[in-house]
Formats: sequence, structure tokens, C-alpha cells
Amino acid sequence: MLDDVLRTIDDNLEESLARLFAFLRIPSISAQSAHAADCRRAAEWARDTLTAMGFEARISETAGLPGVIAQHHQAGPNAPHVLFYGHYDVQPADPLNLWHSDPFDPQLMDGPRGKKIVARGAVDDKGQVVSFFEACRAHLAVTGTLPVRLTILLEGEEECGSPSLIELLTKERDNLAADFVLVADTNMWNFETPAITATLRGLAAAELTITGPSRDLHSGLYGGVARNPINALTQVLGQLHDSAGKIQIPGFYDGIAPIPAALESSWQKLGFSAEEFLGEVGLAHPAGETDQSPLAQLWARPTADINGIFGGYQGEGAKTVIASTATAKLTFRLVPGQDPGKILENFKTFVTERLPADAKPSFKLSGASPGFAVALDAPFMRAAASALAAEFGKSPALIGSGGSIPIVEIFKTQLGLDTLLAGFGLDDDCIHSPNEKFELACFHRGMRAQARLLTAFAGK
Amino acid sequence: MLDDVLRTIDDNLEESLARLFAFLRIPSISAQSAHAADCRRAAEWARDTLTAMGFEARISETAGLPGVIAQHHQAGPNAPHVLFYGHYDVQPADPLNLWHSDPFDPQLMDGPRGKKIVARGAVDDKGQVVSFFEACRAHLAVTGTLPVRLTILLEGEEECGSPSLIELLTKERDNLAADFVLVADTNMWNFETPAITATLRGLAAAELTITGPSRDLHSGLYGGVARNPINALTQVLGQLHDSAGKIQIPGFYDGIAPIPAALESSWQKLGFSAEEFLGEVGLAHPAGETDQSPLAQLWARPTADINGIFGGYQGEGAKTVIASTATAKLTFRLVPGQDPGKILENFKTFVTERLPADAKPSFKLSGASPGFAVALDAPFMRAAASALAAEFGKSPALIGSGGSIPIVEIFKTQLGLDTLLAGFGLDDDCIHSPNEKFELACFHRGMRAQARLLTAFAGK
Repeated sequence: MLDDVLRTIDDNLEESLARLFAFLRIPSISAQSAHAADCRRAAEWARDTLTAMGFEARISETAGLPGVIAQHHQAGPNAPHVLFYGHYDVQPADPLNLWHSDPFDPQLMDGPRGKKIVARGAVDDKGQVVSFFEACRAHLAVTGTLPVRLTILLEGEEECGSPSLIELLTKERDNLAADFVLVADTNMWNFETPAITATLRGLAAAELTITGPSRDLHSGLYGGVARNPINALTQVLGQLHDSAGKIQIPGFYDGIAPIPAALESSWQKLGFSAEEFLGEVGLAHPAGETDQSPLAQLWARPTADINGIFGGYQGEGAKTVIASTATAKLTFRLVPGQDPGKILENFKTFVTERLPADAKPSFKLSGASPGFAVALDAPFMRAAASALAAEFGKSPALIGSGGSIPIVEIFKTQLGLDTLLAGFGLDDDCIHSPNEKFELACFHRGMRAQARLLTAFAGK
Repeated sequence: MLDDVLRTIDDNLEESLARLFAFLRIPSISAQSAHAADCRRAAEWARDTLTAMGFEARISETAGLPGVIAQHHQAGPNAPHVLFYGHYDVQPADPLNLWHSDPFDPQLMDGPRGKKIVARGAVDDKGQVVSFFEACRAHLAVTGTLPVRLTILLEGEEECGSPSLIELLTKERDNLAADFVLVADTNMWNFETPAITATLRGLAAAELTITGPSRDLHSGLYGGVARNPINALTQVLGQLHDSAGKIQIPGFYDGIAPIPAALESSWQKLGFSAEEFLGEVGLAHPAGETDQSPLAQLWARPTADINGIFGGYQGEGAKTVIASTATAKLTFRLVPGQDPGKILENFKTFVTERLPADAKPSFKLSGASPGFAVALDAPFMRAAASALAAEFGKSPALIGSGGSIPIVEIFKTQLGLDTLLAGFGLDDDCIHSPNEKFELACFHRGMRAQARLLTAFAGK
């Protein structure tokens, strides 16, 4: 039976790809309000696709962008109940000039690992969502039903901090009952090796604007006596790290426990090469805390990255101006034990205490979620490990993830559910970057692996 | 006779204004190559205007934007020979959204001091150039000639560091012989008090780009282990000043002489209020070296201002990205004794020595000119002081200028000529900022003062 399902997936790869491309053509950028209608179109595409497959599917409105809820409960009350989570929104595509093709005109291009799907959202998360849809479609085609009771939840604000997710979960609580959550928004260990993500960093975001003079000034007529907000911004943000890579915000490391020995020893077995990992993106030296291993810097230690900075003249040539304002956008990657709210408050104090006279800060704080460690001993975890091993011919790696998937913590606190994180992206997929891609082989094996997972969850 | 000239100016104010407006409508932004044709149109406008007035006027080509040369030598070989310098190019107009009117559709608006002319270039430098043209026009109308031999030189690259000026002066050396240079590109002390500028700061510009990873990275998947070039940029530029406002570039203050006692005592008589000066632009505290007076910070001490900074995500909301590059544009205001070339070299060293691993700097250096102190005891200076006193009813203030007018030094080294700097702008004219303006009264009195200067230079 499972063999028939897998063969159906193999036989219909072209049709599956066409459906993914249709989804990718919708520029559902949640961070930009100009794309709100596109986001809704993406939600409707998912609803209509699932309805056509036999799900009871609908849009669920929120104060922000809508969610999609779909249910297929034909497996009956004794079957395990899985809640699948994904998101239909994507990151902004800029800088557009660095793309080799239109980010919203998906292309199948040749790459070193065969064909690859190139588009914004190719892997994060539309490709992974469609992989799961297609696995369900194959089960339905072969057996007329699914091995488990299944509820699908898609949100549309994952790329901008999920501001409406708790509202959505609260409103739909009764419709989201399940045994556990399955999330496909993570990476494999490498092209050959699947992975289950065991640790996750949280996120807190801050935008800092420093205002100096009330208007832009001529740097000759005012320079020397007028406070320059760009200089002031670099002065304060330049103090974020000491020479050993330690973040200088007061209390930043409070509450962080040592890394569990079991995890650290499993990481040592992965054969991770920092030189190779960094070399692929033109770097050579781990840039974090000098007393931590590269994998710990990546998976188990917090960060303070400036994601964007701007102020004054950015055009061609020089302009002798003292700008009125300067802005930086920062995010902090957080680990278990850190309190996101306190981190943001302490960041405000850190900035305010260091600013010189006439440099007035204002803050926008958002998207705070703590770090999280997922349950490793649940039955669905063991089922997943064997299903992945069957598809890939080797056991999944037990990895950490430097990226935040705040929904893991939200599902635990809001719905009391544990989460299984098993995705099929690769580290070089350029998510959030120009030329995002999803290997066609990963899309294909992702569909097969998801089909196996559904069977394994049912204990078959 | 002079009275008739002044009355002619008064009677023709409306026509003079119309000619200025025609000049202001040409968006001659020299820093932006898209406006190269507009710059040429502005040069042609000046040539045609002067030709119609009886000058021998022509365009003079350079490797960059062209100059304009015009001569009126009818006063004969015994009359003093004045070289008037101005520029027809203007600063970029951005940020456009802060203008209350189209920067290239000049408007006469009501203001606290009566009518004001609002446009990019209203005062810097088109308004001042046209003031001088109109003073000549009035002399020609009344007497049929000018009191002095006059050569007019306009350049089109003043706002981007005058890269072709030396080429122009070299090529036209024989046509630019004169007794001294008259420049109207400076300010009055205040609305009631004219000024002659006695000290000038020079300028050196540097653009610094730091490259980290070879492409934009996801800050979750790489954050902590990948070098962030924006963080690195703030780290190095945040060290530019110490807590006493001293610039930390090695050797930055080498060669600077103490401020002459005569100048400092004349400044003390000006009744300068730093509170008032800064209060008008929303500031309260002199931001420069704590051991220097505010006027010294402004006129006699060097600076290191970041004029623009950019990198990473600048759009709405947050984007969890580690950018590949980050850029800052800086200018250094320099004072006599500092070597601009050495300052720029030392800045490179300062940056390179402080950058962490995997942060690769690249530099664009440009526009270097030293600071300068002008001759105070020349006969034309005394003539100018009495002409200005006659127009304004009070002696001109002997001021410094924080802004660079590199041509003063260039005229000295290239043509051996001293320069008289007497202009009619005000500190609140918003030059280089949105809503640049020139008080109609300043335009009017500027024309009258220029007419008096021409007579005074002739010893009449």
C-alpha cells in the first residue's frame, strides 16, 4: 500500500511541481502591507487546493493576515491526530538586482545536484507545504483516505513574527485538537542525511531610530557643533560585542543553562566543518563567542545582529549632510532560559545609557519568542526517525537550529502540544536571500518522506 | 551714478527674480550622472544670459561637466581686474518627501522675514550668482559699461568636489588673469549684518564598504558564527571619537596651529549664542571637542561626520538577514595645517587595524582640499568692508566658515590669486536640505551690495 503511494508520488512529479509553481507565483510578502491582497490570494490558493483534495478547508480571519484551516478526519476517532503547520507567506525579495530570475516567476534550473526550483518561497515554506499536500494527495489517490486524522493550519505572518497567531489559535482552539504538531520548515543535515531538529533559538526584534537635529544640516555650516545621529548610532551599536564576542547588554546571558552533554556529544559526531560551512559563503572564521564551538555559536548561544541600517545620503557620490535621523534594525537570537521581554528592555537601557547628549532614541520592539528544546522521547519522534531512515537509508541527525520557529513554543503554551520538526531544506538554499532554491530531489524525497511519516504515525 | 545703479536694481526686482526662477528650474544636480544634460543646460543658460548683457561668453569643456567663461573688459587696462567665481550646479534634492514644494519649481513664499525664494539652489549658488549678474546688468544699463574689468567663471561640479576645476583653470589660465577673485557663496553674519569670511575648513571624503559573507544570509541559520558587516561597520566607526570629542584617527590633529588671538577675540565680539544656534535645529549641546568653544568647533577645528550609512534591510517590518555588505560615506572637515591626503590614508589604517576577521574593507577616497585662511589686509578687502558697511549701515563681521570652499585654495595655488568671500545667504537657508530658500530681501540687498562692491573696487 505504502509502495503504491510512493509510486503515485514518483509518477506525478510533474503535476506536483506545476501546483507548487502556481503557489510560488503569488508574491505573498507579509512584511509589506502593499502585498496584503497577494497574501490573501495565497491563503485562498491553499484553501481551494485542499478543498479539491477532499478536505473541509476555510479561511480563518485575524486582525492581521488570515490563516487557513483544513480538516480530514475520515481515519476515525482511534487514528492518531496530527496537526500539520506551515506558512504561506514569504520574505521580501529585495535586493532584486541580485536575483538571476524574477523571484515570483519560478524556474527549474540546472544545479550541481540536478534540477533546482528557484523562487522566493521555493523552500521557505511553500515548497515544504506543497510537499506535504502532495503526500496527502497520493494517499488519497491510492486509498481514498489518510492513515491519520489530519488538521492543517497555515499562517500568513510567519516571516514577520506571527503577530496574529495566538489570536488564531485562541479562536480556533477547538478545531486544532491533536496529538502533536508536525512542522516542515527546517533543513536536512545534508543532501544525503535527513534531520530532526531538537533545539531552536528564539527571537526578539528591535528597531532603533536616533534623532539628532530637527532637519538635515549642511555638514560644513554645522559640523563639529551639531550632534550627528549616524555617528551616535555607530557609537552605541559598536559597543554591542566585546573583543571575545560577548554581548554587552546587561544581564544578556542570565538564565542560560550549559548545553546538555548528550546533545553536545551527538553534535560532535556530525563531522561539522566550520571552515566548509563558512567557506561556502566567503567567510573563514567563526565570528561568535571565542570560548564556544562553532556549532554552539550557531545552535545554542544567543546573538545580536544588526539586520539593516540606514541614514543620510545613500546616492551616488558624496553629500555633505548631517542627517536628522539614523535607524538600525536588530534581532537577537535567544536560547532557553533567556527572557525575551527582559532582553529588549535591557537593550533599551544599554542604548539610552550610552548615547551622548542631543541623540534621542526611539524604539520599536516586536516579535519576542524564547528559545526552546523539543521533546526527544515521544512515540511520534521514534516513528518519525524510522520513517526517515526508511526513505533515506540512514538515521536522521539530531540537530539544533539557529533559526527561530516560535510556533514550537506557542503550540506548547497555547495548545499543550509537542512538535516534531522534520524538513527537507538544505543550508545552501538561500532562504531570505536572493535566488532562494529548493532542490527538485529534496522536493521529491520530501513528498515521499511525508507519505511515509503519515503511515508511520498510524503505527503501520 | 551709483545711486542710479541702485535705483535701477530696485525698479527691476521683479524682472531679476524672473531670471533667477528660470535658472532655478533647471535641475543641475552634478552628483547624479542622470542630470548631466541638465547641468549643460544650466551652463548654456548662464552663457546666453551673459552674452545678451554684452559679455563675451562661452562654454569651456572639461573631462567632466563644462565651465562657463565670460569677459567684459571695456573698463580698460588701468581698471582693476576682478575674477568672479560661482557655480551653476546644485546639491541632490532628496529626501523629496520632506519638501513642501517641488525643489525645481521655484516659489515665492511668505516667511517671518517677508517673502522668500524656495527651491534647490535658491541661495547655493544660483541666487548668489544671479545677484551678481543683476548688479552688472544695472551698471551696464545706467553707464553702458562696468567700473572694473570683469571675468566671470562658473563651474558645474562644486557640489561634488570640483574634480575638473584644476583642468579648467589650467586650460583657461591665460583667460583668467585678474587682481583677485570675488566669490559669493557664503553667508551674512545675520539678517542685519554682512560678513566677510576669513577662515575656511577644507574637506576630504571617504566611502567605506565592508564586505562580510559573499551573499545575504539568514540570521538564524548563520547568526552567531557568520561575520556581520553592519555590526563590524558600527564597531569601527563607533571608535571615531573619544568621550571628549577627540577624533581617534592616528595623527589627525598633526600640524594644526592654535587659533590666532586676533580672530578669536573678534569672534568673542560676535555675541554668538550656541544655545540659539543649536536651538533652531532642535539641539541643545555643542557636540564637538569639549575643550573648544562652540565657534572654534564650527570654524577652526576639524570634524569626522558620517554623512550616510546603509546596509541590509531598510523596508517595513523586520527581516532576519545578515547582509553581505555595509557602507558608510564620511567627510572630514579640515583646518589649516592638516594634510588631506594623509588624513585619508590614516583613516584607511584606522579602519583596517580595527576590523575583525572576515570583514573586508574597500575605500573610495575623493574631494580632498586643505583648510585655508584668507588675506585680511589686501586693498580689495578694505574696499569691500566699506562698500558692505554703506549698504547695510554696519561693518561686516569677520567670520569663519565651517564649510569648505576649496576653490579659495585652488585659486591661490593655481592662479596665485587671493579671494574675497562675501555672500548674502543666512544660516537658516537650509542649503543641502529640503526647502532650501533665499530671503527675497537678501537677494535684493545682495544685488545692491554687489553693485556697490564693483564701484568700490574701482576706487570710486
